[in-house]
Amino acid sequence: MTDSNLTRRRFLGTGAATGAAALIPASIAEADTRKTAHKTSRRATARKVDVVVVGAGLAGLQAARTLVAAGKSVVVLEARDRVGGRTKNHALGDNKVVEVGGEFVGPTQDYTLGFAKELGVGTYNAYLPLDSVYINASGQKSNYSGDLPSAGVLGTVDLITIVEQLDNLASQIPVDKPWTWEKAAEYDYATADALVRQLCPADPQGAIDLVNLFFDSAYGGIAAEVSALYVIAQVAGFGDKHNVGTIERGISSQGGAQNSRFVGGSQLLSTRAAEQLGKRVVRNAPVRSIAQSGSTATVTSDAGVWKAKRVIVAVPPALAAEINYAPLMPAIQDAMRRRMTLGTLMKIHAVYETPFWREDPGVWMALKVNGCVPEMFDNTPPEGTPGILMGFHGGHAWRQYANDPAGRKAAALSDFAEAFGERCLKPIDYFEQDWTSEEWSRGCPVSVVGPGVVTEFLPNLIVPFKLVHWAGTETATYWNGYMDGAISSGERAAAEVLAEL
Amino acid sequence: MTDSNLTRRRFLGTGAATGAAALIPASIAEADTRKTAHKTSRRATARKVDVVVVGAGLAGLQAARTLVAAGKSVVVLEARDRVGGRTKNHALGDNKVVEVGGEFVGPTQDYTLGFAKELGVGTYNAYLPLDSVYINASGQKSNYSGDLPSAGVLGTVDLITIVEQLDNLASQIPVDKPWTWEKAAEYDYATADALVRQLCPADPQGAIDLVNLFFDSAYGGIAAEVSALYVIAQVAGFGDKHNVGTIERGISSQGGAQNSRFVGGSQLLSTRAAEQLGKRVVRNAPVRSIAQSGSTATVTSDAGVWKAKRVIVAVPPALAAEINYAPLMPAIQDAMRRRMTLGTLMKIHAVYETPFWREDPGVWMALKVNGCVPEMFDNTPPEGTPGILMGFHGGHAWRQYANDPAGRKAAALSDFAEAFGERCLKPIDYFEQDWTSEEWSRGCPVSVVGPGVVTEFLPNLIVPFKLVHWAGTETATYWNGYMDGAISSGERAAAEVLAEL
Repeated sequence: MTDSNLTRRRFLGTGAATGAAALIPASIAEADTRKTAHKTSRRATARKVDVVVVGAGLAGLQAARTLVAAGKSVVVLEARDRVGGRTKNHALGDNKVVEVGGEFVGPTQDYTLGFAKELGVGTYNAYLPLDSVYINASGQKSNYSGDLPSAGVLGTVDLITIVEQLDNLASQIPVDKPWTWEKAAEYDYATADALVRQLCPADPQGAIDLVNLFFDSAYGGIAAEVSALYVIAQVAGFGDKHNVGTIERGISSQGGAQNSRFVGGSQLLSTRAAEQLGKRVVRNAPVRSIAQSGSTATVTSDAGVWKAKRVIVAVPPALAAEINYAPLMPAIQDAMRRRMTLGTLMKIHAVYETPFWREDPGVWMALKVNGCVPEMFDNTPPEGTPGILMGFHGGHAWRQYANDPAGRKAAALSDFAEAFGERCLKPIDYFEQDWTSEEWSRGCPVSVVGPGVVTEFLPNLIVPFKLVHWAGTETATYWNGYMDGAISSGERAAAEVLAEL
Repeated sequence: MTDSNLTRRRFLGTGAATGAAALIPASIAEADTRKTAHKTSRRATARKVDVVVVGAGLAGLQAARTLVAAGKSVVVLEARDRVGGRTKNHALGDNKVVEVGGEFVGPTQDYTLGFAKELGVGTYNAYLPLDSVYINASGQKSNYSGDLPSAGVLGTVDLITIVEQLDNLASQIPVDKPWTWEKAAEYDYATADALVRQLCPADPQGAIDLVNLFFDSAYGGIAAEVSALYVIAQVAGFGDKHNVGTIERGISSQGGAQNSRFVGGSQLLSTRAAEQLGKRVVRNAPVRSIAQSGSTATVTSDAGVWKAKRVIVAVPPALAAEINYAPLMPAIQDAMRRRMTLGTLMKIHAVYETPFWREDPGVWMALKVNGCVPEMFDNTPPEGTPGILMGFHGGHAWRQYANDPAGRKAAALSDFAEAFGERCLKPIDYFEQDWTSEEWSRGCPVSVVGPGVVTEFLPNLIVPFKLVHWAGTETATYWNGYMDGAISSGERAAAEVLAEL
């Protein structure tokens, strides 16, 4: 327990022993790191800490920061050779990066904005004052401005009414316990597909085609897969305690969840946090088992064994279920996590010398119904070159091309060309990030729960399993599926643990 | 390769080297077992076989039998300390047993009937010539005869019409490739809940309450969770090449899938098959990883390492996805298997001195809408005593009582008493088998796929992953989810492998 006491003294000394996340002074973090370095080298006997955190994504890192700030000894075991979970920077050379995972931040995402501020990571506008392109199911192309295609280009689909009705439903939901809503079963036993069709009797197929554009990136899925209640609850979470959630805030760029990007790329949030935590973060340490006996949890990873008073599992629920638990977790918790499959989502990037499309045809984003990349964005780094187009490739399109990488590339470039000009067919670089094939994510951006699951299972979502607590964006009330939900969940789980230690 | 050659010679000598399952003469099996016994003891170096089979349920055992009959060397690695997978006998004393897992067999389940015949396992009628009880959502009790509650007791629900329409849809489906049906997307993107409500406009809630009685045991789930196409395809599979699938055959006792039970209990099929395979079956050998390089697969289990030319993974798809594969399986195969979550199902048994209900009130089975055990059966062993009642406890009820074992027991006994008489409140024994809490099943009776999954993923279901082939009841066309589907899938996978060796 020397390590624990040492850590506690040091951090009590900083006056930062609160439950809330606090900036760990870099000098102290470094000193502490050197002291504990030898403890995290490989050895056969179990090391002891107050808390083991499983996963060094934003949830796990913020849990660890909170615990360390409160004077607890912590180890963060990360399966990969990198931190950041579902955020990842791709190097473009010349110190430029582009994000191939979670990327954006916007108003009411105060956990993320605060986290970035503490770590000295700046933001910049992600949108451009240019037109957008909408390509309908028949291939007809129209320009529009603002965040949603205007009524004029949508034919018989009354998107405004659909959005208003969904917002109205979302406003009725208890955001932290959607299963207690009086209409919970009715909407949980229906799919989002069925709900959308019902909301647009004039053109149900047109409505679902349009909505699936957004489901492609939001769930890596199709509306037919998702509980309508889950969608409504997620909309309710597009806000904070002071701002009721709305679809507009969730899907918008200017003033919405895609308002800003991070200077240095979103993964910088995690790498900075991990730097501060120093040797407490152990990479290449997939956790294989968690055994609990009395007041001690024994966590076995490929990098060694740790004994702890509490464990915070901060990985996607479906992966959390794959760890070998002794005893097994309650069956309903296990069955629940197995029902929280992640979406099938890829980000596709094409690189050009310059973002020529900003001049000709003068657009910056595009939507293409039934496209290979149904949502396309100008994702050029803040330096202005190279020009980069990004397309979300998820849901139906992902499955269609899963066994056909050449076809996928050709179709993606064709979509880019249709929206941004013929020159897009000849990129100087092209890369794909398939989150579904990442061993330690198994999908992106978030777990997608089918009909029935919210009411039948999710009341068990954050119930601790003896000494094991649960974090990760899926466990958040606000901004579930976003970086903000990950960070808030880490704080919440750390607070639970601190209350017990 | 000595083992392989030895095995091949022996079995070529029997003239049994065909792709079809063949009875392994017991004397030869025993002799071979002794020869190979030393090879399956624990040791550090890898052993070599032609084929590793993962899982000693009926699928894996039949795959192994087929391969051995064709002269191949085989090891079957079983995670548990027993064989039989989702079948399991519970000892009642005096050499009597009752099944707490898969139990019944009926017409067109020729793989199972043939398997039983080869292994000398007899059958007997599972039904009794007595009335059944139907307790509706208001608690009103009626008696009926035959397999389905008669129209008179169902109020406004026209069950016959619902069944006829579902049978009609099932008759249109290509049973081995439901995703190629012209209406596949339409029905796959809908839930069975939505379909049933549509088929009974006079009383949609009444219809879904009734249908969920059957979904409780058939899927360990509720109709809202399941793709309508998956249900229709499963109905299409309630038959064989000569008999189109019907709901009646699937849910009936007399003349249907629940027609007969096995003398000695259904698990006897697996224990007999395992006896014949002898030391080729290794228990307590959970497979942790499958590495493939060139023409060799290396399978690592808790009982040692085997190298093989081919591997047949014959465990539920969701568990197959948890093995560590190097390289990883194609992402769409992984994402598919993770979407094949097993139902949440328990079998509850109460034991009495005698089956008194056969005399008073003179009934043998019961259905109770929204019950704790919505489907109840007289499950007395063929010897006639003790009297045993069995209730399926799945889906909504399972989730409702997941954290309340005392409440579950009280509610189950209350349901038994309501249907079979007050004396049921005082059993002499009571036991539950919760398949969802079984580490190596994670649910029962079958994987349940949500809307969208059949068309978006299942075309990849039996596509081999390099040297790895797939078996298990979920991969069957006919009787998917039944013992028969497991056995046929084992033969199919073995035939695939034999074509490659």
